[in-house]
Amino acid sequence: MNLSDHYKSVGPWLNGSGPESDIIVSSRVRLARNIAGFLFLSSASQSQKKEIFEYIQNQIQSTKLNDDIWMMNINELGEVEKQILTERHLISRQLADGNNESGAAITHDETLSLMINEEDHLRIQAMSSGLQLHETYKKIVEIDNILEEKLPFSFSPQYGYLTACPTNVGTGIRVSVMLHLPALKISEQMDKVLRSAKDLGLAVRGLYGEGSEPVGDFYQLSNQVTLGKCENKIIDELIELAINPMIEYERRARQKLLEKKSVVLDDKIHRACGILSNARMISSDETLYMLSYIRLGIYLGRIQHISLETTNKLLLLTQPAHLQFLCQKNLTPNQRDEYRAELIREHINTH
Amino acid sequence: MNLSDHYKSVGPWLNGSGPESDIIVSSRVRLARNIAGFLFLSSASQSQKKEIFEYIQNQIQSTKLNDDIWMMNINELGEVEKQILTERHLISRQLADGNNESGAAITHDETLSLMINEEDHLRIQAMSSGLQLHETYKKIVEIDNILEEKLPFSFSPQYGYLTACPTNVGTGIRVSVMLHLPALKISEQMDKVLRSAKDLGLAVRGLYGEGSEPVGDFYQLSNQVTLGKCENKIIDELIELAINPMIEYERRARQKLLEKKSVVLDDKIHRACGILSNARMISSDETLYMLSYIRLGIYLGRIQHISLETTNKLLLLTQPAHLQFLCQKNLTPNQRDEYRAELIREHINTH
Repeated sequence: MNLSDHYKSVGPWLNGSGPESDIIVSSRVRLARNIAGFLFLSSASQSQKKEIFEYIQNQIQSTKLNDDIWMMNINELGEVEKQILTERHLISRQLADGNNESGAAITHDETLSLMINEEDHLRIQAMSSGLQLHETYKKIVEIDNILEEKLPFSFSPQYGYLTACPTNVGTGIRVSVMLHLPALKISEQMDKVLRSAKDLGLAVRGLYGEGSEPVGDFYQLSNQVTLGKCENKIIDELIELAINPMIEYERRARQKLLEKKSVVLDDKIHRACGILSNARMISSDETLYMLSYIRLGIYLGRIQHISLETTNKLLLLTQPAHLQFLCQKNLTPNQRDEYRAELIREHINTH
Repeated sequence: MNLSDHYKSVGPWLNGSGPESDIIVSSRVRLARNIAGFLFLSSASQSQKKEIFEYIQNQIQSTKLNDDIWMMNINELGEVEKQILTERHLISRQLADGNNESGAAITHDETLSLMINEEDHLRIQAMSSGLQLHETYKKIVEIDNILEEKLPFSFSPQYGYLTACPTNVGTGIRVSVMLHLPALKISEQMDKVLRSAKDLGLAVRGLYGEGSEPVGDFYQLSNQVTLGKCENKIIDELIELAINPMIEYERRARQKLLEKKSVVLDDKIHRACGILSNARMISSDETLYMLSYIRLGIYLGRIQHISLETTNKLLLLTQPAHLQFLCQKNLTPNQRDEYRAELIREHINTH
């Protein structure tokens, strides 16, 4: 089975089946690790980086993880494939764009990915559908343990795991969720929500991670500090102080809109449906805005013929590299808008 | 049969069956007449106006036209009904709003209407589908002759028919067509077209006549001067110098759009379809813009499930008084937008 067969579908972490999936699209946990006895990448020469890469690659392949992963050398991938992996949240932009001797190991269901020589020697990432941070953390701990048997991680009794960037020192953990908050946006409460997230020391980003602006009411929320707290406490605090309140506010805002502005809401939801089912050209941004209303319409029972899974899938498949891959040729921006509209119509009208 | 049953449908002049119906929605001819021996309305007292009204009413009722008309006293009509008749182009705003002793006689198929004591003692108006100015004129001449047997029209051998306003003196004729010119608008040629119409001494108005702005690519084009030319020449010139060139330019512009911007065009047409089939609130202006694209889509073969007749019918039924009549209650502007969307969905999705 070829990795590229996967690019037509999405992994279980995007299938809309997890808890609170109407608001929490997905959960993600990643750990930053470095190997004792090797220089940090910022100080390493190309040949040392190569040595690190090959060493880690070999060690991973000597574990039982090897049965279920694709191992790839980033430098051997084409531009479109690198971009596809980025769009699928399996590798970071930094890894895709970098010139390091670097690689990735990705499980067949795409819920686990290991990046070698990104910012740290090793990054371990796991993703799940809906709000499943504790479950995802449990899973990543297993993987971490399996790898630790083969790889001597740099660890200081005083500071914890040592990492290339000081913000990751300690647990080396970053915990994040992809949120969909349309009702808070419509009822103009997002500024307040974003401010309180900032006050809690959390980072809020757009759908496509670091450096991307929030579009279409989709956000990524993650912790920033990893030092001085244990992993479970970091996760607990994120859920209790930020995620649970946001879910509650969003649900309350949806209820209020339904009571006070039900026709206005129905109008927006059904128009979104009409536009996605009929447009012959559509931009990436307009797609996100329309999918946001469709998701809201599904939650409110206004839309029956489209599933959450389809909307999540379209979030991914309508991105530039996926479009080019699915269409099997290079596309100009105008052609992308045309093909995007076609792909959406196919999914909306038949799934 | 009650007149109000008619308000749910439209007369044959809007059924989209006439020549060039894709561009010329309808043709209209009206004659201005005054009765010899009575003062012009501007000089007449209320009791004299009443006398004129009753005299003309009686004379009309003594002709064979009486078998096929509703005769009505404007002052006895409710506000909504007066507005409905205005929206249906059967009476003018001036007649609906005026305080004269005035009336109207309308044939059951609504292709002929006689207004008593509008600006002149009598106005005779005939309407047909598509481009049928000569046919419509022939019909109105028959009516004019029938009436002239009973009514002594003021006529000067030197000037022709005498009218209240000097612009109508002579033939007393006004000839107009309702045009749909979406491609000229999209390809930014409307300014040029409007300028040349002005140079020809023609008036260009919006869909709802005098004082209305063109919205959604619908225009009314009419002659201004009626003195010094015979009726057939006025009609010939309007057709040859203005209407035929506009039809040709519009067709050429459509062809060009189809060749150069076919996807952009398809996108606009199908989005219009998606919006009209799905919106839960829609303004009158947006309706006109969307119906304009639907009409274009029908002509280009892009839309099969909606007929020209349905689009023409919706131009009428989606107006405020029609909405209130069909819904059988007074509606706020927001409620109108809701009910308009509902009415459109019913027509678009089932007809």
